[in-house]
Amino acid sequence: MIYFDHNATTPIDERVVEAMLPYLKTFYGNPSSLYRAGRIVRSAIDTAREQVAALVDAPPSQIIFTSGGTEANNLALRAVPTGLKIAVSVIEHPSIIEPAIKNRKNECASIAVDENGLVSFDALEKLVQASDSPALVSIMLANNESGVIQDIVGVASFLKAKQIKLHTDAVQAVGKIPVSFSQLGVDLMSLSSHKIYGPKGSGALVIDKEVVLEPMLVGGGQERDWRSGTENVASIVGFGKAAELALQELELRTEHLLALRNKLERGLKEIPGLLIFSEQVERLPNTVFIGIQGVDGEMLLMQLDQKNIAVSSGSACASAGAKASPVLTAMGVDRQLAKSAIRISLGKDNTEEEVNEFNKVLKSIVKR
Amino acid sequence: MIYFDHNATTPIDERVVEAMLPYLKTFYGNPSSLYRAGRIVRSAIDTAREQVAALVDAPPSQIIFTSGGTEANNLALRAVPTGLKIAVSVIEHPSIIEPAIKNRKNECASIAVDENGLVSFDALEKLVQASDSPALVSIMLANNESGVIQDIVGVASFLKAKQIKLHTDAVQAVGKIPVSFSQLGVDLMSLSSHKIYGPKGSGALVIDKEVVLEPMLVGGGQERDWRSGTENVASIVGFGKAAELALQELELRTEHLLALRNKLERGLKEIPGLLIFSEQVERLPNTVFIGIQGVDGEMLLMQLDQKNIAVSSGSACASAGAKASPVLTAMGVDRQLAKSAIRISLGKDNTEEEVNEFNKVLKSIVKR
Repeated sequence: MIYFDHNATTPIDERVVEAMLPYLKTFYGNPSSLYRAGRIVRSAIDTAREQVAALVDAPPSQIIFTSGGTEANNLALRAVPTGLKIAVSVIEHPSIIEPAIKNRKNECASIAVDENGLVSFDALEKLVQASDSPALVSIMLANNESGVIQDIVGVASFLKAKQIKLHTDAVQAVGKIPVSFSQLGVDLMSLSSHKIYGPKGSGALVIDKEVVLEPMLVGGGQERDWRSGTENVASIVGFGKAAELALQELELRTEHLLALRNKLERGLKEIPGLLIFSEQVERLPNTVFIGIQGVDGEMLLMQLDQKNIAVSSGSACASAGAKASPVLTAMGVDRQLAKSAIRISLGKDNTEEEVNEFNKVLKSIVKR
Repeated sequence: MIYFDHNATTPIDERVVEAMLPYLKTFYGNPSSLYRAGRIVRSAIDTAREQVAALVDAPPSQIIFTSGGTEANNLALRAVPTGLKIAVSVIEHPSIIEPAIKNRKNECASIAVDENGLVSFDALEKLVQASDSPALVSIMLANNESGVIQDIVGVASFLKAKQIKLHTDAVQAVGKIPVSFSQLGVDLMSLSSHKIYGPKGSGALVIDKEVVLEPMLVGGGQERDWRSGTENVASIVGFGKAAELALQELELRTEHLLALRNKLERGLKEIPGLLIFSEQVERLPNTVFIGIQGVDGEMLLMQLDQKNIAVSSGSACASAGAKASPVLTAMGVDRQLAKSAIRISLGKDNTEEEVNEFNKVLKSIVKR
């Protein structure tokens, strides 16, 4: 299989599985237990916390382990006291948009993006200048569909002056570009293990010391009372190992991905009517989001599947629906072209041969 | 090591690890993806859902996978609309008591237990007869510390007549005694994988068709919108396998545990000043909760740890604190005796030799 859907999920790195196995087979203690078997496991969680912290340049004490990116995103919004406003960009992941809209504690405003998918500073400024300015803004670091990287440093310094907190969903960015919690200047940041060659079932919310959260899962007091529930030890250990590897190999991976992406895009451009979305702005090195005039994206995905090639017709979570990508809609792409969109997201173990094969197959399908 | 703390967590069954490995190593697709690699994984989740459903005699469509028992318990309470009352027994797990008390949507009442740790029907009746009777009652099927099994069938039929919903936390009961969702007559039931020789990071809430929940994790729409977030596939598959084995081997396990417990208790009774809590009422076949006059439970736990024996001085989650067991306090046990308490919880792979060794070691420690 040619797997080109790494923004949906990644295969677990073999070295990560190896790191996890002892915690599935031998060290099964409950980390809250006081005896030795508990303490061994507690210490493994501490190590993982250091590894994840190192990847994003944050103090280990500011890492809260969660069951994944969705929980981290949902939890982040609970930093806003009742009655205050939340503002989120229109291209956020559903795990930000839905809780922002649905929760009855806070009003929610949305922030537009321009035709390249970049958050509009004008819109942000207007929102902040209003009398009911938000208490928290949430803007993702890199978009899951387009791969567009936002100017979070710029947004953060702008908001800091107004004493507005900033959350960034860094689930797609981490492991693909350098991410420093402190240099970005954000107050909260979401991470996910299974997007960086770690196991599913683990994620983290990184929080600044000043942030006060209302916990979501309560009773038990784990994660210093920020997130109760017996820790998913093996998955946390795997997340830690994946973070360690991502940090060590970041430069190597980025170079490799960029070389593959360039090759891929050269091939794609030979297809008539094909457009690369957000091509003019800074994007993740692994992500290419394309539209092809007159093609149905869903159908194309199925045809590629028959050739044993996995790509996505939008974010995996939204795949079950046949709606046009909300990210493209927000960028003002016309509905017909948006419905033709497919996302190619490369991974560290993809090869030139796979890219060549993909380009060949895609060309032949589109020709028909 | 002699591991006698199975109510805190259990070692994963080797057969469960085997079942999980393909989903850590080979089948890594995102279950929401439409292509083959996604569908394979989706189907594995469906199988696990059937296995868990079979264990508790419920339709698969009524199983919601969660990140564990804590999330299942927290989620269960969200079946109560704003403004209505919740009533929980005083011996519930913190993951029921805390959200019941802390949530600002609902008032909370508590239900007393008698000196044996059985929920008081008098207290329940009084509560229900009051003008502001609760909309939901939560009473655990078997207690994590004492092992006491409640008359949930009796409570359910009493509450059904009053149209009050009943949730039962069956985390400790399942896999140790037969549990039928339909025969119990409850509306909601919580389960946990790592208490039945499955992996950590998975649990489930079983809900009746009539129940309407306000989801906790949102955005993504997984678990038919009851619980968003990429599924923890390997852990869910492991939970399913563990459930299958628990159902197949239930009788065998129960017999074995009961034989061990009887042997254990015969030995314990030779220790002067030792009391077995709730001895007169129906308890889980694996759990023995004891107090020893003049002994400090925490200290005893440490001394046993030095002899490579793992037991608990209360629920694992509360272990970090040095407070007397709230379960014993609720039963009216005096504070001094309560602080001497240790919980011995046996598992399917424990042996007679281990029980003999434990009895010998305990006797010699207490003598000093």
